[in-house]
Amino acid sequence: MIDPFDDSYFMKKALQEAEIAYEKGEIPVGAIVVVENRIIARAHNLTETLTDVTAHAEMQAITAASNFLGGKYLSGCTLYVTLEPCQMCAGALYWSQISKIVYGATDEQRGYNAMQTKLHPKTQVVSGILEQEAANLMKRFFIEKRNLN
Amino acid sequence: MIDPFDDSYFMKKALQEAEIAYEKGEIPVGAIVVVENRIIARAHNLTETLTDVTAHAEMQAITAASNFLGGKYLSGCTLYVTLEPCQMCAGALYWSQISKIVYGATDEQRGYNAMQTKLHPKTQVVSGILEQEAANLMKRFFIEKRNLN
Repeated sequence: MIDPFDDSYFMKKALQEAEIAYEKGEIPVGAIVVVENRIIARAHNLTETLTDVTAHAEMQAITAASNFLGGKYLSGCTLYVTLEPCQMCAGALYWSQISKIVYGATDEQRGYNAMQTKLHPKTQVVSGILEQEAANLMKRFFIEKRNLN
Repeated sequence: MIDPFDDSYFMKKALQEAEIAYEKGEIPVGAIVVVENRIIARAHNLTETLTDVTAHAEMQAITAASNFLGGKYLSGCTLYVTLEPCQMCAGALYWSQISKIVYGATDEQRGYNAMQTKLHPKTQVVSGILEQEAANLMKRFFIEKRNLN
């Protein structure tokens, strides 16, 4: 049987969030949190809008998901994020004990793999889902930004 | 000339925040942000109260300081925190480009040094200021917690 709710399905929802960030002039990263095929949190990067380096999509998604669940641990949840999490976000995900992280594009410079940040031992990771779509949106953003300056 | 505004002076203010956390049943960590000898942000751990793993004292202090300054970079600022920052908080401090971090007690298990988290190359670190006071407060918290359970 075909499962309509696969990783690509949910990553498309995260990409929609990234596009909203793009429209706002934010580095286009989007994230959602899913539990039993239901989206319980949607967020996009708002570091410029909120003038706050902590306002990454993942951080807001963790806070929103905890708020929805009424508990601070995200076991049983999956985070879909268009870009590989940074040290800060991976550190937050570590504390959350989230069950699964699915990310799109790799961040070779500031991603948690390059930075060697530790995730929780219970956390499973899948990477490269809709990688090109996420990477293309980032490229478009930085090309436009360069042309504006 | 004696400088009344030394690292111990400001760490005492961070310890006061940690004591407020203690009274609330939170792991007692406090943080303040200082710029030119003025405190522009005060915060304490609120992970239980807010049911949010991202609500560490440092995270809130960064957000509050950015709000005060109207800018997301904390160059020229010093963070005083009673406990060595974790991966998440060190990752946030990395993005903030903060000039100086002063911490009290070492966190040998989850501290950013043990976890090998990278700080911004511009960030100077001082450790061990009022270390015993901060460590004693933590010990008192965990002993009480154990006795209650």
